[in-house]
Amino acid sequence: MTSLLSPFELSALYAVVGIAIAALFYALLLRRQVLRERMGSGKVLDVWNGIKSGANAYLKVQFKSLILFIGILGIFLFFSASVDDQPFFIAIGRVGAFLIGAFFSAMVGYVGMNMAVQGNIRVSEASKKGFREALKIAYRTGTITGMLTDGLGLLGGVVIFLIYVDHSPDVLLGFGFGGTLLALFMRVGGGIYTKAADMGADLVGKVEQGIPEDDPRNAAVVADLVGDNVGDCAGMAADIFESYEVTMVSALILGLSIATLGPVFDAKWIVFPILVRGIGVVSTIVGTYAVSKWPDRLTKGSAFKAMDLSYDLSSVISIVSFLMLSIFYVNDIRVFLATTMGIILAMSFNKISNYYTSCDNNPVKAVAATTKTGPANVILQGIALGFESTVWTILMIAATIVVSMLIWTGAGILFAFYGVALAGIGMLTHTGNNVAMDTFGPIADNANGIGEMAGIEGEPRKVLADLDAAGNTTKAITKALAIASAVIAAVSLFSAFTETLGVKLDMATDPLVFVGLLIGGALPFLFSFISIKAVTRAASKIIEEVRKQFRMPGIMEGKKLPDYAKVVAICTSAAQRDLAGLAIIAILTPLIVGTLLGATAWGGFLAGVILTGQLLAVFMANSGGAWDNAKKRIEEGHYGGKGSKNHEASIIGDTVGDPLKDTAGPALNPMIKVINLVSLLFSGAVLSLRDLLVWEIPNTGLQIPVASIILSIVMIGIVAGAILLTKRESKETLCDIEEEGASKQ
Amino acid sequence: MTSLLSPFELSALYAVVGIAIAALFYALLLRRQVLRERMGSGKVLDVWNGIKSGANAYLKVQFKSLILFIGILGIFLFFSASVDDQPFFIAIGRVGAFLIGAFFSAMVGYVGMNMAVQGNIRVSEASKKGFREALKIAYRTGTITGMLTDGLGLLGGVVIFLIYVDHSPDVLLGFGFGGTLLALFMRVGGGIYTKAADMGADLVGKVEQGIPEDDPRNAAVVADLVGDNVGDCAGMAADIFESYEVTMVSALILGLSIATLGPVFDAKWIVFPILVRGIGVVSTIVGTYAVSKWPDRLTKGSAFKAMDLSYDLSSVISIVSFLMLSIFYVNDIRVFLATTMGIILAMSFNKISNYYTSCDNNPVKAVAATTKTGPANVILQGIALGFESTVWTILMIAATIVVSMLIWTGAGILFAFYGVALAGIGMLTHTGNNVAMDTFGPIADNANGIGEMAGIEGEPRKVLADLDAAGNTTKAITKALAIASAVIAAVSLFSAFTETLGVKLDMATDPLVFVGLLIGGALPFLFSFISIKAVTRAASKIIEEVRKQFRMPGIMEGKKLPDYAKVVAICTSAAQRDLAGLAIIAILTPLIVGTLLGATAWGGFLAGVILTGQLLAVFMANSGGAWDNAKKRIEEGHYGGKGSKNHEASIIGDTVGDPLKDTAGPALNPMIKVINLVSLLFSGAVLSLRDLLVWEIPNTGLQIPVASIILSIVMIGIVAGAILLTKRESKETLCDIEEEGASKQ
Repeated sequence: MTSLLSPFELSALYAVVGIAIAALFYALLLRRQVLRERMGSGKVLDVWNGIKSGANAYLKVQFKSLILFIGILGIFLFFSASVDDQPFFIAIGRVGAFLIGAFFSAMVGYVGMNMAVQGNIRVSEASKKGFREALKIAYRTGTITGMLTDGLGLLGGVVIFLIYVDHSPDVLLGFGFGGTLLALFMRVGGGIYTKAADMGADLVGKVEQGIPEDDPRNAAVVADLVGDNVGDCAGMAADIFESYEVTMVSALILGLSIATLGPVFDAKWIVFPILVRGIGVVSTIVGTYAVSKWPDRLTKGSAFKAMDLSYDLSSVISIVSFLMLSIFYVNDIRVFLATTMGIILAMSFNKISNYYTSCDNNPVKAVAATTKTGPANVILQGIALGFESTVWTILMIAATIVVSMLIWTGAGILFAFYGVALAGIGMLTHTGNNVAMDTFGPIADNANGIGEMAGIEGEPRKVLADLDAAGNTTKAITKALAIASAVIAAVSLFSAFTETLGVKLDMATDPLVFVGLLIGGALPFLFSFISIKAVTRAASKIIEEVRKQFRMPGIMEGKKLPDYAKVVAICTSAAQRDLAGLAIIAILTPLIVGTLLGATAWGGFLAGVILTGQLLAVFMANSGGAWDNAKKRIEEGHYGGKGSKNHEASIIGDTVGDPLKDTAGPALNPMIKVINLVSLLFSGAVLSLRDLLVWEIPNTGLQIPVASIILSIVMIGIVAGAILLTKRESKETLCDIEEEGASKQ
Repeated sequence: MTSLLSPFELSALYAVVGIAIAALFYALLLRRQVLRERMGSGKVLDVWNGIKSGANAYLKVQFKSLILFIGILGIFLFFSASVDDQPFFIAIGRVGAFLIGAFFSAMVGYVGMNMAVQGNIRVSEASKKGFREALKIAYRTGTITGMLTDGLGLLGGVVIFLIYVDHSPDVLLGFGFGGTLLALFMRVGGGIYTKAADMGADLVGKVEQGIPEDDPRNAAVVADLVGDNVGDCAGMAADIFESYEVTMVSALILGLSIATLGPVFDAKWIVFPILVRGIGVVSTIVGTYAVSKWPDRLTKGSAFKAMDLSYDLSSVISIVSFLMLSIFYVNDIRVFLATTMGIILAMSFNKISNYYTSCDNNPVKAVAATTKTGPANVILQGIALGFESTVWTILMIAATIVVSMLIWTGAGILFAFYGVALAGIGMLTHTGNNVAMDTFGPIADNANGIGEMAGIEGEPRKVLADLDAAGNTTKAITKALAIASAVIAAVSLFSAFTETLGVKLDMATDPLVFVGLLIGGALPFLFSFISIKAVTRAASKIIEEVRKQFRMPGIMEGKKLPDYAKVVAICTSAAQRDLAGLAIIAILTPLIVGTLLGATAWGGFLAGVILTGQLLAVFMANSGGAWDNAKKRIEEGHYGGKGSKNHEASIIGDTVGDPLKDTAGPALNPMIKVINLVSLLFSGAVLSLRDLLVWEIPNTGLQIPVASIILSIVMIGIVAGAILLTKRESKETLCDIEEEGASKQ
């Protein structure tokens, strides 16, 4: 079927396969370099082993509970393809791609996390050799995950494309869905884990007992460090991997529709996005490799400057290549403009979130200043700030769509949305650099924690603290990118959905579109509610356990190590509990809306999910980030510094913000993508159900789709069960607390 | 033009005019009864005079700043009608109706508030005669406002209808807009005022100085009591008056479209909603009159039970009459079903908000229980609860639309939305009873405050406290009704908008609909951000003043009265500051979207505003309500009771919730209505601008609507200026605090 491609296209695509493989080899090379470094020794190894085994134990449980979902969904995928009258080779290809997508995403998370664990102890040790050395190891370790994301994502995508060409979107959907499903689990599970452990450790350790963060006497300290790895590292890597996939899938679906518009199949609209991805990987490799090669007169000794220069280098290579490609291959400058727009969008998201959450700008300063009027005002200030920031980010998204329409003026809606999809492609051009910088965050965080426990003092301690702070910045940048790319990916999936179904979504003549919009808009609120509750519930269990361990003789005196594994086990099982419920909601709700209310409501539903998903995600991310940094600002010595009343108020803000910014907010990224992908994959099957067993009420013209209603009732039952399960448990907790309260009075 | 009506219809409508006048006379009668009651005497009269003059001073300033807006908008209204090619008598009628609507709404607020002020001191005095007597006066005073809302709303609506008949919607839009504009000012201004005063009084009085609430030594105490009147009483009454109007307007617009569908003009579709309103007023008068007439064996001595019985009586009369009307007049049972659905929707909203915010249910108990793990968890628990509650309420709205579609199956979209509009009519059938119960809230609250300052002790004190608590419940019920009716009104206005413009809003083929949706969805966030900031900013000024006054000799010892008027003046001017900005945003943003992006983006924009407006309003109302009652629960003695650590945590929750539930949340009700009405009124004029001065770029087909772009830029400039103004001031505050912080360190 590759006959649809020209010889040039074919060889270019093979070159991209080569690039993807090269990226994987580069990752292997870096891995060897990192593992060669010194690990440190002594008591700290015990703690480190705890982190290592805790993190792996978590992923093991996580993967086990995933297998059931993957199995069931694989079967449904196969049948849905058959209902859609897809040929067998596509149906089976889709299932295979689904499994591979899930496996690749798992790999990225698993390897990335393990490398982070290997890296952190080495960074901690390297801090004795100075800032530059420690930073180098941390960045290299992060780059491994980055290259893995790039390599596996590109390899899977392009190989599937080469096999299926004009049918590739159907199969690639499966690939994207595998990655997305895994990302949902990793992101949400990791998010619950990391914040529950964090809250548990802080509330008992720092607040109740007044001992420092990362003190080895705290039983939750290892769980806390594990959490950084499973949440920020494995979760984020899987999330970005997914966006990387999904933007490619949606660009190919829309590109394919354009390619078949004319009398002759015009492959360039699908080949271009793949080549852009290939170029991105090359420039990422060049850029990340260059980090340690810049002359001192350019970096002025700051290794950070070196990272920045490398990023700029990658960008220049990419943009020039895109321009060449669009002029000489596509013969259409507009694809270049659209792709570049994505890069600009990513930058502007980054600027906005930086403005609202960084210590140096007015918003965070204002939050820090309000600590003087008490914690309630701190919370209000943070909420207002988050509300404000979300307005500007959504305007950026709206502007992107409008600009895309202007670029393709007169060419029709398909091109406008293809332009949006290309913006998604452009935005994730330097995924490798981004993931590297992001993974750097938890590594530095852990290294600092290990350093604290290992008793590293003086200059090396400062090195580690600086790295930790730098990590917060790089994490924030990636968070903005993750949200922006999720929304852009979702918008292109949404347009692929309407394009595939050929459905009209006219709110003016079809109230069901509006009904769907309302239901869809509510879903991110439901999702956030459950994930916030999951964190507080898990945290209260951890608090109980840590308190118990503090009461044991010898622990507080530091003569005996607490039982870290027990807290890790509590976190692991708690994170799994609500995860299944959330996954069920994300997968079944779109199917319920479609089955019960039909295609137009379904379309409205997707629009509603994207709209409020984006608003809530940004609100929670930025409010949380601002509270976090307001606390840091006070700890730097403003407004009374550590230990003051103001500091206490800022800690309350930070504690409120943590589950918002690290659990509920990020959980919305994979959610909106899962919902859109599920809709694309199952819409054919679900909608054809509506024609089965239709009963017409005599004399009314009212047609009742019996099969759909029965299926909806079953699915609503399952979703209601999932929601009730989360509520039942909170009643138990409530009773516990009620009784305890009564006995104390 | 009344020739379009049958003699029966004509006489029925004249009867409705009679009913409306009767309602106003009933209000007058009640006023005389209330004013006859004893007022109390002594030092308390000083405080009361402070409240009275403070409240009136506030309204005076408020009305003054309104006049400019009303003048400008009146002129624009006239021109917009001319651009729409409306005959002169309609253009002038619209402007006249606009002025009358604004005047009526102002009257409801002004008289209602003044009566509340007259009532509260009398209730306080009557508490000495027992619970029943005090309740009677409070309820009667509330009923005055209720009957005024009913009477003026109905009178204005039906008289305009009788004059204009088939052109009446065009004129009624002006009437509704007048009411809405005033409601926006009263609701937002009152909301900022009341919570700023409340926060200021509490933070210095209760928290810093440890003196009780409503202590006369606190300089902010009068402002706090004034705030209850201008916010909860004048603001809420104007808000409900507006919904009462707007639901009628939208029912008439949609009804008119249906009336002209057939070959003969069929007036019943427009006359029915008016008759329903008339019946509602009659049954309200009967019901409220019956309150003190129920035999003891039915009420079992509880005056509350009497209110309930009266409400039930009103409902029975209404529903039976609706049924008769729909069978014998309209000959279509479906109008009855749709109207009844509205009553059910109001009840279900009430049930949901009651479940999430009342002390007796699990959600509030859970919030109270989490106080044991500190304030951060209290905040998280409350946010999660608000998120959850908003999901179920929006599902109820969605269900209402679906049921309306099912009722009118096969009849087309117009009927489905007409059904929704009828639901709005049904929902507000007993506006009189509702406003009576709501106004009861601030009266009881004030009476309790005055009682505290007058040193009333023993049984009468308990009576006042009980009334105060009862008032919180009735306030919560009305709040749910206000939100539900605002959303339903907005949905019907939205459909009237699409119907009037005849525009297609197909998200699948027109990306601008989606762009509009995104922008509209962001607006409630922007609005909430500004109103929250307005409260905290005003509160910080009040805190400063109160602190200063406490430092003056003699105040703390109670030898000298503090300068209440000064704090009242600060509140008044602070409330006005951000008000103008918010009004500008609400009025101009829809015009900007329409001018710049056209009709389809405008439609999407309205849908977005309704969606997130509803979600945020319910979230903020219920989170706030739950925090409030969790605090009350602890004050009842649970979890350590007053003064405990847990109590402190619950106060933080309550303080966060206050501006959310009483300022930002309620501000969204008039906002979504203003935006929809502005759109309806100005769409013709704005869209015809797009055809002026169009410049076509050669060889591209790209048409640039120059006039629109220039106008947009001007309007964007004004909106940006309004937003920047709110931000500039916060920078000043920031600098103040920075300096103070620096000087203290």
